[in-house]
Amino acid sequence: MTQVSREIRLAARPVGEPKPSDFELAEVEVGEPGPGEVLVKNTWMSVDPYMRGRMTDRPSYVPPFQIGQPMQGGAIGEVVASNAPELATGTSVQHMLGWREYAILPADGAIPVDTSAGPPQAFLGVLGMPGLTAYVGLLDKAELRDGDVVFVSGAAGAVGSLVGQIAKVRGHTVVGSAGSPGKVAFLKDELGFDAAFDYHDGSVYDQLRAAAPDGIDVYFDNVGGEHLEAAIAAMNPFGRIALCGAISQYNATEAPPGIRNLALAVGKRLTLRGFIVSDDAARMPDFLRDVGGWLREGKIHYRETVVEGIERAPEAFIGLLDGRNTGKMLVKLA
Amino acid sequence: MTQVSREIRLAARPVGEPKPSDFELAEVEVGEPGPGEVLVKNTWMSVDPYMRGRMTDRPSYVPPFQIGQPMQGGAIGEVVASNAPELATGTSVQHMLGWREYAILPADGAIPVDTSAGPPQAFLGVLGMPGLTAYVGLLDKAELRDGDVVFVSGAAGAVGSLVGQIAKVRGHTVVGSAGSPGKVAFLKDELGFDAAFDYHDGSVYDQLRAAAPDGIDVYFDNVGGEHLEAAIAAMNPFGRIALCGAISQYNATEAPPGIRNLALAVGKRLTLRGFIVSDDAARMPDFLRDVGGWLREGKIHYRETVVEGIERAPEAFIGLLDGRNTGKMLVKLA
Repeated sequence: MTQVSREIRLAARPVGEPKPSDFELAEVEVGEPGPGEVLVKNTWMSVDPYMRGRMTDRPSYVPPFQIGQPMQGGAIGEVVASNAPELATGTSVQHMLGWREYAILPADGAIPVDTSAGPPQAFLGVLGMPGLTAYVGLLDKAELRDGDVVFVSGAAGAVGSLVGQIAKVRGHTVVGSAGSPGKVAFLKDELGFDAAFDYHDGSVYDQLRAAAPDGIDVYFDNVGGEHLEAAIAAMNPFGRIALCGAISQYNATEAPPGIRNLALAVGKRLTLRGFIVSDDAARMPDFLRDVGGWLREGKIHYRETVVEGIERAPEAFIGLLDGRNTGKMLVKLA
Repeated sequence: MTQVSREIRLAARPVGEPKPSDFELAEVEVGEPGPGEVLVKNTWMSVDPYMRGRMTDRPSYVPPFQIGQPMQGGAIGEVVASNAPELATGTSVQHMLGWREYAILPADGAIPVDTSAGPPQAFLGVLGMPGLTAYVGLLDKAELRDGDVVFVSGAAGAVGSLVGQIAKVRGHTVVGSAGSPGKVAFLKDELGFDAAFDYHDGSVYDQLRAAAPDGIDVYFDNVGGEHLEAAIAAMNPFGRIALCGAISQYNATEAPPGIRNLALAVGKRLTLRGFIVSDDAARMPDFLRDVGGWLREGKIHYRETVVEGIERAPEAFIGLLDGRNTGKMLVKLA
């Protein structure tokens, strides 16, 4: 039996914002799984900001995508054929061969998901890599301490929305920034942020000062640029910054203007720490216990922005980089 | 008995590089020490880069100097009159009322120095605040680990020269940058640095890459600006940066251009940590044991650049900011 599968390939390396023509939809025939392999029918796939880096040909912590080859990323699917005794047909699994409808992969690259904890696609968001990113970034990298005032940018996204909620569960004052009035309302009304602002409404510096007049102690940076400068300026002594991403710069075609006030980190005794969640897989059990528990108890909430069909995955990704999602951006495949 | 004492006062807040006219030499009459006080005849005083910040009227971790008032800073002196039973006449002490020939101060603000460990003025340099800065910055803030390649800027200065030597004692490869051929020779020939370069000789990025082709793991930043950007670019994954100062910017009259590549800290998982040595006084005993021991064993060396006379203290300070010292810049007063 051969299975026809559609997949998205990298057609051209984007210059600036990715365009639909940078992607190519192709059909391939997928055969039978070899020994130790499974055939997975993908039901959901993830688009994440870090993928923009993989579209550019430069050394990084993950190798770049190759032109003419299918893209990759987190996906959820169901095992539809198995040649590995440990993984039965019908199992819901998560794996890294997204951007395609069907995938053949080694059984040990397909991790069963516990669908009693949440719907399968939650393992691409609040219970998956973005959730773990929020958890380790806030607790370990930013070393959240009692009484800290927390600021998070990209706060309505998959990572940011959980950062703020974890801090709220722990009793902190939380300020978030986001890119639309609707997102700001979501943060304040649904997620319980103490303050939130739309960064289009004026300088981040002024809005952050107004939202946190006594300063901030932790900044979780998803954005970089002006947000990072404003956070450094607003930081109290001994503050900590988790450097998670700089989405404001991912599509930049010229060198961004730079962080002009980093020297303040000396007198303020600030710590800035960059991190990549894959280094912290060991924290997954703690994360699933804590965040899974808060989710069951109704203490945290999440939203999804869903685009349907593999052919629309590029649109979902372009929209993600443009901030057109609230909560986790997902592509539903089946 | 009244004692005539000359002192240096802040005459005007400098714009850019301090000028001699920003300082004023004045004579005052110093009376007898009150109960619990001592009269100290200063023999040495320190000029340090951080004092530039205190000449500007802005909030910081130490209050600004006041116009018309004497400046302050580390000094060594001898108790010449005591009204405090615990501090006898003739004791060598260190204290914070420099920039003057005589000082009256509470006995608990004058700390006896152990002149068996080194000459008194060493407690303003290698055995004092600059030395402790190097020690805690390298070991605690940059978390020096086995095998780390260490880069230090301002490497011929009081702090930088000790940073490099501590790293050498611990068996590390050390690269330093400094501002003259003589300083570079000092680093390589006298202090045993593995590589050193004059930052005037070309881009810091290119020279650092040539000196450390396999990258660096620790950067001790005394300079900021271009050096910090080059270090971020040269950092290996999980590298650490101790942010000690930004002397390249202290005299800046416009906003410096900013650090354009800080977003690299995410993928490289870098930690940048600002610090102020006064937070780490608890490390003084460890520091004196280790660095005092290495000094006695001849494993570390230090140099002084000495200017004589209180009237030349402004010249010494201006020269320090201009890099005209090798090792610790001191003013000899008596």
